[in-house]
Amino acid sequence: MSQSGGPEINELIALLARLPGLGPRSARRAALHLIKRKDQLMVPLAAALDRAVETVTTCEVCGNIDTRSPCSICADPRRQGSMVIVVEDVGDLWALERAAIGPVRYHVLGGTLSPLDGVGPDDLAIDSLVRRLEKGGIDEVVIALNATVEGQTTAHFLTDRLAPFGVKVTRLAHGVPVGGELDYLDEGTLAQALKARTDFA
Amino acid sequence: MSQSGGPEINELIALLARLPGLGPRSARRAALHLIKRKDQLMVPLAAALDRAVETVTTCEVCGNIDTRSPCSICADPRRQGSMVIVVEDVGDLWALERAAIGPVRYHVLGGTLSPLDGVGPDDLAIDSLVRRLEKGGIDEVVIALNATVEGQTTAHFLTDRLAPFGVKVTRLAHGVPVGGELDYLDEGTLAQALKARTDFA
Repeated sequence: MSQSGGPEINELIALLARLPGLGPRSARRAALHLIKRKDQLMVPLAAALDRAVETVTTCEVCGNIDTRSPCSICADPRRQGSMVIVVEDVGDLWALERAAIGPVRYHVLGGTLSPLDGVGPDDLAIDSLVRRLEKGGIDEVVIALNATVEGQTTAHFLTDRLAPFGVKVTRLAHGVPVGGELDYLDEGTLAQALKARTDFA
Repeated sequence: MSQSGGPEINELIALLARLPGLGPRSARRAALHLIKRKDQLMVPLAAALDRAVETVTTCEVCGNIDTRSPCSICADPRRQGSMVIVVEDVGDLWALERAAIGPVRYHVLGGTLSPLDGVGPDDLAIDSLVRRLEKGGIDEVVIALNATVEGQTTAHFLTDRLAPFGVKVTRLAHGVPVGGELDYLDEGTLAQALKARTDFA
């Protein structure tokens, strides 16, 4: 694509276009937005990226992303409870933290089993989860993988793998999303929600 | 919004969320994408932003964005024709350049007249356009502003302002977009397209 602003601008657009959610068109808009707001946005963003490159690391315990390892969650003395929540990705960990579900700890698998894509058990952080269980202090593992085929396959594999350790293995409840309308829900979710119905409190 | 990755990550997310097309959610995804692709994407993007901060400037002649002033379009000896296309924004200039319309020159107004937003003639690059006309060598000014109320108001203002210079003032044709379906077009466009019908060649 020929652009009229020199190679520096073209390179910036090409890199921005590789961000999820930005295509070639929105990358051009974003670049223009940045250039027009040089001091308010482009300079701070360049500095923030430089700082992130220098400081951000992966937690050696749980796989979270942080500027320290063990991460601030693993190192938090208020989070030494006996529950560990297994998630697929750091984004899922962030989502659970935003839900303010309490002082829990996490374990980031880094994906789901997917034989077609060549992702086997050794490609996921399963051994490090086993080592955490062997160290003791964990009574319950909550499997919070996505409710997709790959997520559920991985959940079953994990359940088998964790059975010898005698920990309680649970999963997130299925049901009607808060604020959701029944008419828009699939039959599987509705059936699960009926099966898991609770007393009207 | 409380995040779990330290202030460096939160700052990066907050800055990314200020890009057009990215909200808080997609900014989190973009930050995670960048962190996971540190060497392939985050480091190059930081460097590209640094280079853009250092090199990108606004052309003193036409208002285009480039790494030199006069910009590569204004300085191009093959573009010394007598036609200047007036656009609202650098993004519009880029769009016209992608259409490969030939060796033309441009003038970026930097907006449209909008009394409600406090944008008057002095806030737009109208005086610099007048100075270009006074220097001579320009026979035709093509007004390529957006077909919005503000764009058309500005076009009329410009036409009056340029009348004393005896240059030809034209505007882009209205009509059916190439590849467009009549059924989805508004009546105004269809009426204009019929009025401006051409011989079937």
